[in-house]
Amino acid sequence: MVNYPHQLRRQKLETKVAKANLTNFANRGMSFEASINATNDYYLAHHIAVIHKKPTPVQIVKVDYPRRSRAKIVEAYFRQASTTDYSGVYKGLYLDFEAKETRHKTSMPMKNFHSHQIEHMRQVLEQDGICFVLLHFSTLRETYFLPAQHLIDFYCVDDGKKSMPLDYIKKNGYLVANSAFPQVPYLDIIEKNFRR
Amino acid sequence: MVNYPHQLRRQKLETKVAKANLTNFANRGMSFEASINATNDYYLAHHIAVIHKKPTPVQIVKVDYPRRSRAKIVEAYFRQASTTDYSGVYKGLYLDFEAKETRHKTSMPMKNFHSHQIEHMRQVLEQDGICFVLLHFSTLRETYFLPAQHLIDFYCVDDGKKSMPLDYIKKNGYLVANSAFPQVPYLDIIEKNFRR
Repeated sequence: MVNYPHQLRRQKLETKVAKANLTNFANRGMSFEASINATNDYYLAHHIAVIHKKPTPVQIVKVDYPRRSRAKIVEAYFRQASTTDYSGVYKGLYLDFEAKETRHKTSMPMKNFHSHQIEHMRQVLEQDGICFVLLHFSTLRETYFLPAQHLIDFYCVDDGKKSMPLDYIKKNGYLVANSAFPQVPYLDIIEKNFRR
Repeated sequence: MVNYPHQLRRQKLETKVAKANLTNFANRGMSFEASINATNDYYLAHHIAVIHKKPTPVQIVKVDYPRRSRAKIVEAYFRQASTTDYSGVYKGLYLDFEAKETRHKTSMPMKNFHSHQIEHMRQVLEQDGICFVLLHFSTLRETYFLPAQHLIDFYCVDDGKKSMPLDYIKKNGYLVANSAFPQVPYLDIIEKNFRR
């Protein structure tokens, strides 16, 4: 194989970035959300999957047109999301998930999930979509893939008031490997456990 | 079958609404987008499919906190969408589409589609997603379902500068029936032509 200059540059850059990454985005103080977005960028660039984060829902109240070229929103409010944050397609499968992060070491606070989102997950499962949550324990530097059904089951116990113990997550979910490219290789879990 | 009071009320209401609707949302001056949203609400309520419109992408620049309870966005700008407007899941299938409306009688202006959206459609097809556009000719009161590949092929001819003739759409697409419940029954097309 001939190494052209731009390939060499790219290889050097990737090696450099990989070293800086060590094995975990948490080492660089990168937020979990940013690492998921970077993972999705990786999957898209490598033609592996098309997964996007949905835009933040905003209720627009007032728009000014100070210049012809660009409308300026001057009054707007955040709306609560009625679905999950991420969705897309992987080898014909519909994927739908939410990503949450906690500093706690033994449980994930359920207040992170809204009843609308739980209902949405139920609807997706009913349509045979693949639905799950990615739960990141930043202090432990561990990420888990929990199928949505187990989240829904737990949510129903106490209407989302309790915290979900890490033991429950370990028992019903899958540990996602720490990796550099991509940073949160959650598709590996689907490839191994959910492909028909 | 026994008709319980709440069923009777619902039937009466549906009959009333159906009469008011005649057979086409256009008669009521309802926008095409609103009719698609109503269709998706219908599919969701009847457990037929889970399809949502993505929120409008907004670049948030400045947020004020006038009261503890509610953040107010005071400076923000519209961003160009990098994907299509609608996506979701139907019987395990990933669906992805864009809806466009024109008053023209013989063609659909291609300036309605951005290169980013065309690229997104290409990516979705590569992952075996079902991707299409719903094209509404408001003057004719006709709606067509055009598979994305035919839109992409046409877009490539002239980088999206030409208008797409209705004849091309008729030849490569499907007429969507006018209906009251739901208003734009596009899943019928998928059921007949795309289920494996």
